[in-house]
Amino acid sequence: MSATQTVQLMDGTSLAKRLVKEAAVKAAEISQRTGAAPCLATVLVGEDPASVTYVRMKRARCAKAGIKSRHIGLPATTTAAELIDTLAGLSGDPKVHGILLQHPCGPHIDERAAFEAIAPEKDVDGVTMHSFAAMSFGLPGFVSCTPGGIMRLLEAYDVDLAGKHAVVVGRSAILGKPVGMLLLAKDATVTYCHSRTADLSRIIQEADVVVAAVGRPRLIRGEDIKPGAVVIDAGYNPGNVGDVDFDTALTRARLITPVPGGVGPMTIAVLLAQTVNAAANQLGIQHH
Amino acid sequence: MSATQTVQLMDGTSLAKRLVKEAAVKAAEISQRTGAAPCLATVLVGEDPASVTYVRMKRARCAKAGIKSRHIGLPATTTAAELIDTLAGLSGDPKVHGILLQHPCGPHIDERAAFEAIAPEKDVDGVTMHSFAAMSFGLPGFVSCTPGGIMRLLEAYDVDLAGKHAVVVGRSAILGKPVGMLLLAKDATVTYCHSRTADLSRIIQEADVVVAAVGRPRLIRGEDIKPGAVVIDAGYNPGNVGDVDFDTALTRARLITPVPGGVGPMTIAVLLAQTVNAAANQLGIQHH
Repeated sequence: MSATQTVQLMDGTSLAKRLVKEAAVKAAEISQRTGAAPCLATVLVGEDPASVTYVRMKRARCAKAGIKSRHIGLPATTTAAELIDTLAGLSGDPKVHGILLQHPCGPHIDERAAFEAIAPEKDVDGVTMHSFAAMSFGLPGFVSCTPGGIMRLLEAYDVDLAGKHAVVVGRSAILGKPVGMLLLAKDATVTYCHSRTADLSRIIQEADVVVAAVGRPRLIRGEDIKPGAVVIDAGYNPGNVGDVDFDTALTRARLITPVPGGVGPMTIAVLLAQTVNAAANQLGIQHH
Repeated sequence: MSATQTVQLMDGTSLAKRLVKEAAVKAAEISQRTGAAPCLATVLVGEDPASVTYVRMKRARCAKAGIKSRHIGLPATTTAAELIDTLAGLSGDPKVHGILLQHPCGPHIDERAAFEAIAPEKDVDGVTMHSFAAMSFGLPGFVSCTPGGIMRLLEAYDVDLAGKHAVVVGRSAILGKPVGMLLLAKDATVTYCHSRTADLSRIIQEADVVVAAVGRPRLIRGEDIKPGAVVIDAGYNPGNVGDVDFDTALTRARLITPVPGGVGPMTIAVLLAQTVNAAANQLGIQHH
């Protein structure tokens, strides 16, 4: 590759806007045909300021897209059993189509048990074991929102994944692991790297697609990016710094997500799109 | 590494015998304390000769270990709904502790839907979505039998996986995908390769641990094995040929599984061990 190669930014902000617009059209159609808007229940335990902000932002975006939200704010002293009861109640409530449990829930709560109280058909945040296995096996279901957003970005920029080497850095249950499985389903050769990986630089150097999903500022060195690679930075660190050394990576990549404005906006867009789809499924509505 | 390096065969036959013996001791204890032996239900649709043989072999091994088995042979014309009814019935039957659905079930049956009718606590073959997610997230649950057997072999031969590069060739739902997740849980860097992988040779050359799980005779070239690597061959092809070119690999590997006598015997051993554990769990028995 020559030094004059042009790099293209993957514009998550614009793509997210388009997805939200589509979701809004579908939400309006559902409201018109059924007399009730799609409804997302948001559940928050305690009052962690970052979590309060996230939930508020998600609800505001829902409102703008014509999606109702019902917020259940539980005190920090809520027990795991009480939280599970709440989530099971929402799972059985026909007026609620999607459920979002904002996490972390606090150290005294078994988050996995809480997630599992969400019915798979309302798991619009893609956090249940069922949703993970569905992503892994290529079965119908909801995807984890950030991985889903990453896949939509790759699709929007016509990235052909078949036979390509995709390296995922990070192995969390809602980001690294599922995005690797989604890339594998698209016939990429997938490598999972993480904190114990012995020679990260060398592995990154062989990657056609890099997904950084670890939350460590500039862990991925720009000079390790293979010329012409596609770089997806799902890291969000203080000061709007991603997991990739952006400035150097920019001189080598073919496609790269900015931070902010890359992966970030896609996450909420997928949440809204999946909420509308959940409502359509539960109400038996086929979109035109 | 020098040419005089010694290679060690990973003796699955002996390790499997030890596991089955341990399972038999536990089965006897359960029988003595409860008056009833652990019970595995085997379900077979149709009369595919290979499947008939597999089921017969598994039941014979159960009998030798003091595990009861109850066989349900269904006609080839069985519908998916009838099969699901049968499996749901066994899931709810307190006399049955483990359920094995022999597959393939035939082209007219949605195998995934059938597997999902098996209660997770009786999924001793590790085929449900729940079991897959539990393996992936490091949660309690049953493992898929061949992946579980591979992990026990690695443990028995003291293979330290942390930070090592493990390459899994194959991505099936009950072998390649889960063994990769189990290796990742042991802190290996994990690469999934498959039929669409562009440069398999080069990737194998970098592997500290190779797991071949694809069912293509001698797909893995011996000369690609890194000197000192650990080679696990889960392939079973006609003529007792594995997925690895054994003779050449033998001159380079540090540890290697023979075919037969490596991974093969471990699969049934894990099935029996998990059946006994399922019975103990369901009967509330703690082993000494």
